[in-house]
Amino acid sequence: MIKVNDNFGRLAPNYLFSEVARKIRIFQQENPEAHVIKMSIGDVTRPLCPAAVEALHRAADDQGLAETFRGYGPEQGYPFLAEKICQFDYAARGIDISPDEVFISDGAKSDLGNIGDIFSADCTAAITDPVYPVYVDTNVMTGRKIVFLPCTEANGMVPGLPTEPVDLIYLCYPNNPTGTTLTRAQLKVWVDYARKVGAVILFDSAYECFITEEDIPHSIYEIEEAKECAIEFRSFSKTAGFTGMRCGYTVIPHALKGVDSMGNEVSLNGLWRRRQTTKFNGASYPIQRAAEAIYTPSGQTQIRESVDYYLHNAAILRQGIGAAGLNFRGGINAPYVWVKTPEGLSSWEFFDLLLAQTHVACTPGVGFGLCGEGYVRLTAFNTLAATEMAMDRISKLTL
Amino acid sequence: MIKVNDNFGRLAPNYLFSEVARKIRIFQQENPEAHVIKMSIGDVTRPLCPAAVEALHRAADDQGLAETFRGYGPEQGYPFLAEKICQFDYAARGIDISPDEVFISDGAKSDLGNIGDIFSADCTAAITDPVYPVYVDTNVMTGRKIVFLPCTEANGMVPGLPTEPVDLIYLCYPNNPTGTTLTRAQLKVWVDYARKVGAVILFDSAYECFITEEDIPHSIYEIEEAKECAIEFRSFSKTAGFTGMRCGYTVIPHALKGVDSMGNEVSLNGLWRRRQTTKFNGASYPIQRAAEAIYTPSGQTQIRESVDYYLHNAAILRQGIGAAGLNFRGGINAPYVWVKTPEGLSSWEFFDLLLAQTHVACTPGVGFGLCGEGYVRLTAFNTLAATEMAMDRISKLTL
Repeated sequence: MIKVNDNFGRLAPNYLFSEVARKIRIFQQENPEAHVIKMSIGDVTRPLCPAAVEALHRAADDQGLAETFRGYGPEQGYPFLAEKICQFDYAARGIDISPDEVFISDGAKSDLGNIGDIFSADCTAAITDPVYPVYVDTNVMTGRKIVFLPCTEANGMVPGLPTEPVDLIYLCYPNNPTGTTLTRAQLKVWVDYARKVGAVILFDSAYECFITEEDIPHSIYEIEEAKECAIEFRSFSKTAGFTGMRCGYTVIPHALKGVDSMGNEVSLNGLWRRRQTTKFNGASYPIQRAAEAIYTPSGQTQIRESVDYYLHNAAILRQGIGAAGLNFRGGINAPYVWVKTPEGLSSWEFFDLLLAQTHVACTPGVGFGLCGEGYVRLTAFNTLAATEMAMDRISKLTL
Repeated sequence: MIKVNDNFGRLAPNYLFSEVARKIRIFQQENPEAHVIKMSIGDVTRPLCPAAVEALHRAADDQGLAETFRGYGPEQGYPFLAEKICQFDYAARGIDISPDEVFISDGAKSDLGNIGDIFSADCTAAITDPVYPVYVDTNVMTGRKIVFLPCTEANGMVPGLPTEPVDLIYLCYPNNPTGTTLTRAQLKVWVDYARKVGAVILFDSAYECFITEEDIPHSIYEIEEAKECAIEFRSFSKTAGFTGMRCGYTVIPHALKGVDSMGNEVSLNGLWRRRQTTKFNGASYPIQRAAEAIYTPSGQTQIRESVDYYLHNAAILRQGIGAAGLNFRGGINAPYVWVKTPEGLSSWEFFDLLLAQTHVACTPGVGFGLCGEGYVRLTAFNTLAATEMAMDRISKLTL
């Protein structure tokens, strides 16, 4: 019988969301009249913006005519989209990124999952705790050593620098699940550290569109030296409601180098290009056209409206959770609010209590890592009406 | 500086198609009046069928309304498509595959590239020569040992069983690049061998829609015992012109098992499900709806017309190449014709001669592996007019 990748046996069972769903299902069976509001939802609820819908229609027509039909496209994405990304997401913020430093894909999750292919299996990965489970699981699958960086009340959810050697550093800001951000000065500490020790930062900025405050960097490349030490992952999922469309991109500057076992300097941009041309065939043409449309004037207005809608929900969450006397972080430059459980209650105990008393479902923080124990996550992605109703119920919570 | 995956340094430079393009470009510069016909083309030329275009329009509208908007879908694909695949591609041929044995993705290339994740890096891969370069390159990237199985004039392009132990066996039938097929009896030899030695066959049937003859299996699961030893990769690229749309699927039967280092039996379906849920977020919803549409009565008629169009081109190729006095294989159940170069000419020499004399571009066989030396590949994917014109020119070839 064929030998399998043994590392899969070391993966923790991934039951967080299925367990949340199971508990809601049981509660609903026992309380058929209860109206459960899911503030655990990680998916968006607003439809695709009209500009993207129109572009999808045009692309459908393109595909139906021999003259405009597009078959295999460039594996790294079409220039029409890469150029818009460089112009709107980088040049507009004073950052010089060239289209051949941009790799368009079917989503940030794929890229974050596959990026490990280009690094040595001997590398050590530094990962914050609590965290989006994909960083952990994909490194376990490769058999990499993982160093966890605790984010706690004591450090204000801002991880300290690693105390042992690391090669890859996963940072996600604005953060999922804690909703915290790093200032320019705080992020520069990481860039300086990575350059000093020769590490590469894998910077997940899937939630950058929710940033409203001045001093919070939208891109790690706002720290100029980051081009020598950082890969940035971006997504259209939350920016433009592309969770079901599937499109994102990864930036790997030409200045970013690694070293092979012979001591030769190697371009990480070149390695990823080779990886993508070999194992990927480009993102869907109609989907890239829809993504391009969000960079039109009407597209920009429409996605701003959606982001503002979710930010308004986040403000309602902050107000409601605060009024209920609970401690929390996040919800300002992020769609997530990270709520401290009342004294003595574990993540799951507070989940149960909230569901029983208010019929509101949250996500237990311990599902994101050991340091998430004692917290729950609420999201701003439900409808305004549901968000308001949930906060009204929570205001009557008795602890 | 970070250590990179050293195996990337062992990849052969992938310059086949860029070298073909470079030579055509130079020829065109030196002969500006020449009309070059690309019979090297691997992409389809016919537009997406109307049924798929209409479905794409409907899905665009779905995405534009909150009531019908679809966000994150199942990582393994929507049941509406998996059920159609089971019904039309398997049950209709008497094969029982359940929807949870089907994994829908953004294309067969991604799945063929990523499938190695679930197997031990110690596994040895058996790969035919000549071959689609993705099988070779993805195994080199993982550092796997590769055993090549020569396909030559002597064995009629049908590889012999490996003479040393192997764990993974890549088979592609109808074959790219040789256009050859295996009969049911020939394929059963491989299934029996894999079961005997405990190997897994990775069966790429991306070209199954071109099969017209009775005794050629469309699926490896037409050999019943294959469920215990084979993974099948399918693509909508050539079947329905999805090269730019991006959709394919992989079948991993529940009966297929591997073993971990503790000697525990492990379900390969379960491992791939864990890989996909961790590193992939599902194929695009509108694209899955377009794929679903090809299983409607009108969709079936329309994709049959396209396949027949290309098969008609293939027949013209066979007729023309034969009339020119050249030896060849393929072009009956496949869109590829594998042409023996005239006595004494290498693949590239014949490429140059054909381009100079007839202004027809082909693909040098040596680009697909050492055993491809002395052959060139012609494809049936150009238009009927271009195919007829190319054969007319080749009929006047002087050797």
